[in-house]
Amino acid sequence: MDEKVPFFEKTLLDEDNGIYVEKWSLSGRELRIGGEWRIEKRRLYGGLSDGVDLITLDNGELSLIIVPTRGMSIWKGMYKSMFLGWNSPIKKPVHPRHINLEAKGGLGWLEGFNEMIVRCGLSNFGAPGIDVITDNMGRKKEIMLTLHGKIANIPASRVNVRVGLEPPFTLEVEGVVYERSMFGPNLKLSSIIRTVPGSNLFTIYDVIENLGGTPAEMQILYHCNYGSPILEEGSRLIAPIEKVAPRDSIAAKEIENFDVYGPPQSGFTEQVYFMKMLSDKDGNTMILLANKGMDKAVSISYSVKELPYFTLWKNTSSLEDGYVTGLEPGTSFPNVKSFERKHGRVVILKPGEKYRSGVTVSAHLGKDDVEKALSRVEAIRGGRHPEILKRPLEEFSPS
Amino acid sequence: MDEKVPFFEKTLLDEDNGIYVEKWSLSGRELRIGGEWRIEKRRLYGGLSDGVDLITLDNGELSLIIVPTRGMSIWKGMYKSMFLGWNSPIKKPVHPRHINLEAKGGLGWLEGFNEMIVRCGLSNFGAPGIDVITDNMGRKKEIMLTLHGKIANIPASRVNVRVGLEPPFTLEVEGVVYERSMFGPNLKLSSIIRTVPGSNLFTIYDVIENLGGTPAEMQILYHCNYGSPILEEGSRLIAPIEKVAPRDSIAAKEIENFDVYGPPQSGFTEQVYFMKMLSDKDGNTMILLANKGMDKAVSISYSVKELPYFTLWKNTSSLEDGYVTGLEPGTSFPNVKSFERKHGRVVILKPGEKYRSGVTVSAHLGKDDVEKALSRVEAIRGGRHPEILKRPLEEFSPS
Amino acid sequence: MDEKVPFFEKTLLDEDNGIYVEKWSLSGRELRIGGEWRIEKRRLYGGLSDGVDLITLDNGELSLIIVPTRGMSIWKGMYKSMFLGWNSPIKKPVHPRHINLEAKGGLGWLEGFNEMIVRCGLSNFGAPGIDVITDNMGRKKEIMLTLHGKIANIPASRVNVRVGLEPPFTLEVEGVVYERSMFGPNLKLSSIIRTVPGSNLFTIYDVIENLGGTPAEMQILYHCNYGSPILEEGSRLIAPIEKVAPRDSIAAKEIENFDVYGPPQSGFTEQVYFMKMLSDKDGNTMILLANKGMDKAVSISYSVKELPYFTLWKNTSSLEDGYVTGLEPGTSFPNVKSFERKHGRVVILKPGEKYRSGVTVSAHLGKDDVEKALSRVEAIRGGRHPEILKRPLEEFSPS
Repeated sequence: MDEKVPFFEKTLLDEDNGIYVEKWSLSGRELRIGGEWRIEKRRLYGGLSDGVDLITLDNGELSLIIVPTRGMSIWKGMYKSMFLGWNSPIKKPVHPRHINLEAKGGLGWLEGFNEMIVRCGLSNFGAPGIDVITDNMGRKKEIMLTLHGKIANIPASRVNVRVGLEPPFTLEVEGVVYERSMFGPNLKLSSIIRTVPGSNLFTIYDVIENLGGTPAEMQILYHCNYGSPILEEGSRLIAPIEKVAPRDSIAAKEIENFDVYGPPQSGFTEQVYFMKMLSDKDGNTMILLANKGMDKAVSISYSVKELPYFTLWKNTSSLEDGYVTGLEPGTSFPNVKSFERKHGRVVILKPGEKYRSGVTVSAHLGKDDVEKALSRVEAIRGGRHPEILKRPLEEFSPS
Repeated sequence: MDEKVPFFEKTLLDEDNGIYVEKWSLSGRELRIGGEWRIEKRRLYGGLSDGVDLITLDNGELSLIIVPTRGMSIWKGMYKSMFLGWNSPIKKPVHPRHINLEAKGGLGWLEGFNEMIVRCGLSNFGAPGIDVITDNMGRKKEIMLTLHGKIANIPASRVNVRVGLEPPFTLEVEGVVYERSMFGPNLKLSSIIRTVPGSNLFTIYDVIENLGGTPAEMQILYHCNYGSPILEEGSRLIAPIEKVAPRDSIAAKEIENFDVYGPPQSGFTEQVYFMKMLSDKDGNTMILLANKGMDKAVSISYSVKELPYFTLWKNTSSLEDGYVTGLEPGTSFPNVKSFERKHGRVVILKPGEKYRSGVTVSAHLGKDDVEKALSRVEAIRGGRHPEILKRPLEEFSPS
Repeated sequence: MDEKVPFFEKTLLDEDNGIYVEKWSLSGRELRIGGEWRIEKRRLYGGLSDGVDLITLDNGELSLIIVPTRGMSIWKGMYKSMFLGWNSPIKKPVHPRHINLEAKGGLGWLEGFNEMIVRCGLSNFGAPGIDVITDNMGRKKEIMLTLHGKIANIPASRVNVRVGLEPPFTLEVEGVVYERSMFGPNLKLSSIIRTVPGSNLFTIYDVIENLGGTPAEMQILYHCNYGSPILEEGSRLIAPIEKVAPRDSIAAKEIENFDVYGPPQSGFTEQVYFMKMLSDKDGNTMILLANKGMDKAVSISYSVKELPYFTLWKNTSSLEDGYVTGLEPGTSFPNVKSFERKHGRVVILKPGEKYRSGVTVSAHLGKDDVEKALSRVEAIRGGRHPEILKRPLEEFSPS
């Protein structure tokens, strides 16, 4: 929120001050500004979602469902008639209380995975694996890092809503999530999800701060996931790629078509490609996922200074099993942390140091809109050709 | 519910449609049909039960407490003055959020175990042990399967109550529970628990469907548990046994008395017997557990086509530690899954395929009623004698 | 509560009888006895504290926040203007549902650790490590014992408040917590936390009973933790020490100053000292922690018959990471259980047997009050000198 603009603010949750609002809503009609937007907070009851807080952020054209209880993830969205997100086998937001990250050899995270945008991190992300920490006694101890870390399964400790009272009547949901332990990391995520009435886009502004007294490792990856209708047979990834390499031999076999999607296929095994993106002079880049007819698309814009590594997850499995692709800008690739550390891709935050990152997600509907988005990608590309590696890179993939 | 009969229906929980009824009840008096029956829903607060939903299904003579939050288990029951169930060290239903199935080397399930009928399954049941799965990367991965699987610790996603408006005024509680994960099983359990006013019995009708896009393994076992007053010194298991074998050397020592129970005994180690049952021409069988005086009994009826393997769990431990026996018809024996798989006893469900199974539990009070039940068992037995094996069978028990 | 004194009683939680009071309070003003005291119960909503019950016990001069949901721990307190407790990186009480004790190689307990007094136990406490149990099949099974056991992460099943209606108008909060499992321990903790209006102290009276039918191991340690303002550079531990030994080489290096505290120090590695205390003729002892100026102090009094081993945890880490010291009387040292068992320091309770233990915590403000507390310590010491060992003792520390 531009601080010079007067704004309305509502605190929905504040652990420190004992504030919790179970049900609340506000709309443009009520405030008589900004048109047809609406922000609504509710709490779910029953089943695996019991106790989950949801916030619907609807700017009139684009709406999102934010899940403070799952680390400020964005479950799904809608732009006009176009669905944003994917159809996971897990149909509802699962309360973190029901997720055991340690289960199935560290794959428990998968039992709650259904979001359009879920952060992986903050102390670690990527494949589960053994890591060595120094325990409270000052001794080396082997622990298991679990798939994609903890942040998506930690409820927010503070949630605010803000509405700008002057044009463009900015709409914001802010959440604060702490990933912390005695003798462990003490990382604070402050996330603002912002849009404006009538817009086709929203932006996530994250600040991650090391509240601890010693330097701390930090990793963040934005797992942005789309299925039908944007994903279909013939959909394409259009991006200003500098370099792309398959993660493994399975991906290598399909390197020729790494940027094209097939139809839903039962028993499909994921294909993952590691990339570095080109950017404009300010370090910004944009990745476009467009359907076959080039009239439905979503784009992800971000700074390669903040998120230098991009992972493409192609999982064109059957509709039942999750037909989905993940566009994943991150501070590193989602390999086991020890590998990323070895290759210098794990961020270190000094005490009090902050790391800023985020993504802007735009929905493009109709050929004209998709064409405009495409032009933006082409402008960043500037006619350069990607370096396409046919085999996994030793520097990118553990053998 | 016979679909031709008009019925009253109430949805108590429906995640998809955001329905959750915290407190509700209905009785025969209110509806002026069927007599003294009553169905009541409530939510528990405080302690380890905080958030647990309970449904009391009382047909006037027989009442059950169903626990939707624990996978539609049946906690306990009462037939006239006779208690149905057992006295576990765990006195109240424990919310799955407090159960860590991975704890104690995969034995965490035991911290919530107190039901009269609890399903074991659906992706696995039996002893904890290592299994090999194919992970999201298409690689073999060793994971730990936990004791008796997950289904008893997953809250239902939908709960309906139905009451038939014409004789016999059928009373039904229906629940739907999903055991699912991205890159994992996607199994749907639809369970109907049915009785009629004044009856001495209830039936569980389960349908398990593979919602996934690829074939999936499925296992289900009905762990039916009884203690005092039906279980006492001199109680007997009366069943149309085709073949019985001890699970291990501990059970083998007592094979002569496998069908007779001792008194509560401090420090008792469980004795487990694996059996195959005879059935009538339709494949139905019936197992009777009767007290010494043959005036208190419970019987379990089911189809051996659905549940071909029967396990008898004798745990005549002290009253404090859980004096109980388990009658356990299942799709296999409760050995570690890899062993059952090797012996072809794990069900495979194709995409969309359904598996039907269930049990009818009848309470028998008074010598006449027990005698009638006995006759039914004798009719199935048809004078045939069980094959009693004195040592564990290689095909039934891992060494 | 002296049973001859008439008292007021309020049940706030009783699982057996379906009682749960979400919000309640009572004060001396309302009852018109005992002055300005107040007892208040509330439930937290939102974030990691969602569902946590808190009871404020305020005697007018000294107030405590008791957490029934975390095993009757005492989160923090205040004596007049003096804070009692410490400033953990974890700012709010974390609901046990969010704690996975098995995480991080058994260190998950640390994600909820922020109390002034937290019990470690009851089936085990101390460092995580492998132990061998007899499983339900009667076979030896290796399991992982997790740091400091389960009791602090089990919600109470019963909570009562009692107020004496005659002088001294005793104020009591009583809680019952069960640590139990089928085929596992069955231990009942009944805890009374007692104070009187205007007092500078409170007492914890615990009774631990083996409800199981066979003998059971039991361990309890009171982890009493203090930070600023009582802990500061130059603060001292003043205690009637009989013998003290460093736990490890890190502690050994600082043995000369084991009883003096340094300033907050980033990256500090904990120093732990194992001790045996002298006691008065009744077996009672007292440990004093005083600030540099000797005008702020807290003392812990207890019986060495109940709690024969004392552990001093010096963790003068940065303020951000938890500047804290733990005074820890226990039934043993907090080493891995198998080591304590080998040295005969694990309690065995016969079926039905009870173990009584507890601590009295007094706050001392002003030089006179601290001086009086000091005299009490000196009286117990009786001029005897501690035996200070420069190296870890084989009997106390695993190598």
